[in-house]
Amino acid sequence: MLRLSQFPFKTLKSAPKVSDNRSTSLLLQGGYIRQAMAGAYEFLPIWHRVLRNIEQVIREEMDAAGYHEMLMTILTPRDYWETTGRWDIPEYFKVPGWGETEYRIAPTNEENVTPILGEFIQSYKDLPTCVYHIQKKFRNEKRAKSGLLRGREFIMKDAYSFHTSREDFESFYADIKQVYMRCFERLGLGADTVIADADGGAISDMNSHEFQTYLEVGEDIIVSDSSWYTYNLELASGIPDDKNISEETKTMEYLDSVPDIVNMEKMTKYFGAPDWQMLKTVIYKLQDSGKYIAVVIRGDLDINELKLGKYLRNTYAESFALADETDLEKLGTVRGFISPLKDSQLNITTLWDVSLKTVKNFYGGANAIAKSTKNVNLEDLDISEFGDFSEPREWFLSHNIPGEKLVFKRASEVGNIFHLGTKYSTPFGLSFTDENNQVNDTVEMWCYGIGVSRLMGVMAEYFMTEKGIMWPQGIAPYDYYIIVMGEENIPKAEELAYSLEKQGSSVILDDRVGRKDGFGQKAWDCELWGIPNRIVISAKTLEQGGYELLERGRESRIVKL
Amino acid sequence: MLRLSQFPFKTLKSAPKVSDNRSTSLLLQGGYIRQAMAGAYEFLPIWHRVLRNIEQVIREEMDAAGYHEMLMTILTPRDYWETTGRWDIPEYFKVPGWGETEYRIAPTNEENVTPILGEFIQSYKDLPTCVYHIQKKFRNEKRAKSGLLRGREFIMKDAYSFHTSREDFESFYADIKQVYMRCFERLGLGADTVIADADGGAISDMNSHEFQTYLEVGEDIIVSDSSWYTYNLELASGIPDDKNISEETKTMEYLDSVPDIVNMEKMTKYFGAPDWQMLKTVIYKLQDSGKYIAVVIRGDLDINELKLGKYLRNTYAESFALADETDLEKLGTVRGFISPLKDSQLNITTLWDVSLKTVKNFYGGANAIAKSTKNVNLEDLDISEFGDFSEPREWFLSHNIPGEKLVFKRASEVGNIFHLGTKYSTPFGLSFTDENNQVNDTVEMWCYGIGVSRLMGVMAEYFMTEKGIMWPQGIAPYDYYIIVMGEENIPKAEELAYSLEKQGSSVILDDRVGRKDGFGQKAWDCELWGIPNRIVISAKTLEQGGYELLERGRESRIVKL
Repeated sequence: MLRLSQFPFKTLKSAPKVSDNRSTSLLLQGGYIRQAMAGAYEFLPIWHRVLRNIEQVIREEMDAAGYHEMLMTILTPRDYWETTGRWDIPEYFKVPGWGETEYRIAPTNEENVTPILGEFIQSYKDLPTCVYHIQKKFRNEKRAKSGLLRGREFIMKDAYSFHTSREDFESFYADIKQVYMRCFERLGLGADTVIADADGGAISDMNSHEFQTYLEVGEDIIVSDSSWYTYNLELASGIPDDKNISEETKTMEYLDSVPDIVNMEKMTKYFGAPDWQMLKTVIYKLQDSGKYIAVVIRGDLDINELKLGKYLRNTYAESFALADETDLEKLGTVRGFISPLKDSQLNITTLWDVSLKTVKNFYGGANAIAKSTKNVNLEDLDISEFGDFSEPREWFLSHNIPGEKLVFKRASEVGNIFHLGTKYSTPFGLSFTDENNQVNDTVEMWCYGIGVSRLMGVMAEYFMTEKGIMWPQGIAPYDYYIIVMGEENIPKAEELAYSLEKQGSSVILDDRVGRKDGFGQKAWDCELWGIPNRIVISAKTLEQGGYELLERGRESRIVKL
Repeated sequence: MLRLSQFPFKTLKSAPKVSDNRSTSLLLQGGYIRQAMAGAYEFLPIWHRVLRNIEQVIREEMDAAGYHEMLMTILTPRDYWETTGRWDIPEYFKVPGWGETEYRIAPTNEENVTPILGEFIQSYKDLPTCVYHIQKKFRNEKRAKSGLLRGREFIMKDAYSFHTSREDFESFYADIKQVYMRCFERLGLGADTVIADADGGAISDMNSHEFQTYLEVGEDIIVSDSSWYTYNLELASGIPDDKNISEETKTMEYLDSVPDIVNMEKMTKYFGAPDWQMLKTVIYKLQDSGKYIAVVIRGDLDINELKLGKYLRNTYAESFALADETDLEKLGTVRGFISPLKDSQLNITTLWDVSLKTVKNFYGGANAIAKSTKNVNLEDLDISEFGDFSEPREWFLSHNIPGEKLVFKRASEVGNIFHLGTKYSTPFGLSFTDENNQVNDTVEMWCYGIGVSRLMGVMAEYFMTEKGIMWPQGIAPYDYYIIVMGEENIPKAEELAYSLEKQGSSVILDDRVGRKDGFGQKAWDCELWGIPNRIVISAKTLEQGGYELLERGRESRIVKL
């Protein structure tokens, strides 16, 4: 039982102003947290209880699935990070020891878990296996922000699974997805948490997913339709609306244009035509081969370089950059007037965004300053390949449900799954003997994160009301909040508190007496800490034969003592 | 339920040799731990469960006492350490951030807890209060050793209490001592854990205590008698045995001595007398005043500089050092022949160890090379004060129980209490308003540590047998270990495991099949992991109508299914 008369962590009268996060203000006001330094928060007792409740949910679900909890070190030796080529990442802290020795305080645990499992995995019978831990991690963020969402010190549940093959992972994945969704359901986020396909960077072309909780102030945008379709904005894809596609195809003509460097606005004004009728052409240079690529898109859309990157990575090379003026000159064109016309000297590979199929009789460039074309149609152009290269827009239509518009919603990431492949298992020399007693040194790894302290921040935001944080039962720091009015009634309140504790409930007894500790203050703190069941014991309720019980979402009632 | 067929963390055939610690070898053999680097251990799943069980005991006892659990940061800002003058301690890690910024990963948490409570403590009504957390800590040990006992990364339960005065602390202290002892009892260490008075260094002259568990390989020595008396060796005190005290007092004579620099051995040989009949005189120089102090003790005993230091700190100055040859020359004496005789020119303050009262007719020096005295008695000497300045010996007698010898026993520290006073509360500006509404800026602090990972190492050593670690019920990683023999009996074993789990027990199901996984291996792992209840299900036990249950310390019996 927490007796508030003996609890120094009092709530504040008003919420301190924190620029980037309203829930952080509320957490500071409620004495939940205190900033130790930018990006690192002290978890005060009330907040610590919320943490433990959340951890317990995650732990129970992970354990039930047969994953093995352990506790890896925070200090890690430099040579492990050199083994994986990750020693010199500036966002990872280096910690000097004696003499020349340096350690790292772990920002992530591949460099722990891989050598550990390397010592124990021997046979295909040991696989698949999944281990996890819940521990603090550290990142040398240049600027820490957003309260608990992106800190220098944070708590994560990290799980790692090891497999004989990619196929072995498939059935495992179905399980862990369920485990995660059960966690989020138990945490009260189920209805608003989705699994979105995400880009995992260079090593995670496939099987990278994020668990995202819809939230007005979320830092990500999730695109979905009423089918299974759920994607991070960066990778989302939809169908642009048809424009003047029923018009008759006219013959292309050359004409004079804006006598200056142009942009889309100047063009539309000059020709008196809508922006969707403009052709937008951008030239990129592949950095390995030096080859040029043109990408053409409708004038009202933008190129999504993440999608383009994936396409180029699969087809050509690793990296690419915008072509500069020198490149354009070499190619015989000029910025603002680029156009891969069939009869031009611009003879390069040209990728066409599918949006081009929704418009007829475009305006385009003519590869010289102040020279344009009009009535440009697909047959006038040098087309290599069609693809989806556009930033999706909220008015795009779904690929899956005819006529349905895509839905854009803000969300915050609460969990993720990354394919690690053999990126770590190979340098650490993992292997196993297969069914035929042959050594196989391709151990596939996946990892699964839940940023526990970030999740707490998301939950605070999600369950926030005007008055406090409406924690779900089981996650709330305490189950009951007993307001006792009148010092003479404290013994009765204590008795009630003991009996509730005997039934397995946790109880705050607000036994504060004094001028400042009236009913208002007590009711206020109960709301601020989001306790789902409020009890009042006062002369009045005792007159009525008992105490007043207010369960969240129900009418208050008198319960006989 | 842990199914061993799906558990990769297998035990080893033999214990790896670890030079300084037998239990560490056993823990490595049992797949409990793995060394990540010198001084930092990975806690593998079995060990992690033991950790959680121990933490739970501590948490329950601390919570029941009304102490508030929280979670402080590991990253701490440099300026807090500068506030307390502890930034430049080489055993504390510094962590470079961006630019000139440096952080510290906390080796201890005064620099967290003091500013936190400083924000919340307002009135005397908020005091006393006690907060705690269980968290990893870090020390830049030059050489990490002794397995889990002294690491670079370790887990501690740290509690801090805040008081209006030293008196306020007294009743509080009685409580927390009980809390600690209850913890150690529940952990199975109660019978062998004692509270010893200890030296807490310069800031903790009083109220520094250590909780010590008797252990053959313990790194400390605890001195006790059958009364309440329990002291760390450094501070222990006893009565040296009487020697020739009944002899008649003879007249002092000067005589020639060893014609050379002497030591005790040469003296006893030269005079043909026992070492206890020699006077041993050592001169110290007080470093502030430049004053000299002679300390005289029986020749078979040694001066304990810790005791001497406490005496000098209280009476004279902070620090002192052995006098060197120049000092001795200045004083008119010479090393090996120093003697504060009444008629000598050696006119300095002389402290006399009480052991001098047990001998008559000493041999001593005469303050010149190769000159000695014999039949020296107390009346011949220039005595300032008697005191207890000796290193205690096992044959010393108790001060409390007449005729009883002191008992020396090796032990390992499992907890401690330090008086912090206002060392941290003053620089952080803590204050409170007292009963008369006056501001009082003397907030007294105490701290209470339990080194959880160290305690785990001590417990491993304490409960170690030839075959494994006999964890007590409730601390053991699992309650039951089910050995199933014969693949066809696995479903029956599963059923039993489920029913045990339903009753709230934790279960290992050893369902491994195969050539290497016979009964011997399974029984061995059960012992190594110290599971208190072993169940065997086999064709034979089923024939007898059930399973064999072997509860630790009892005869095995057949239990009907």
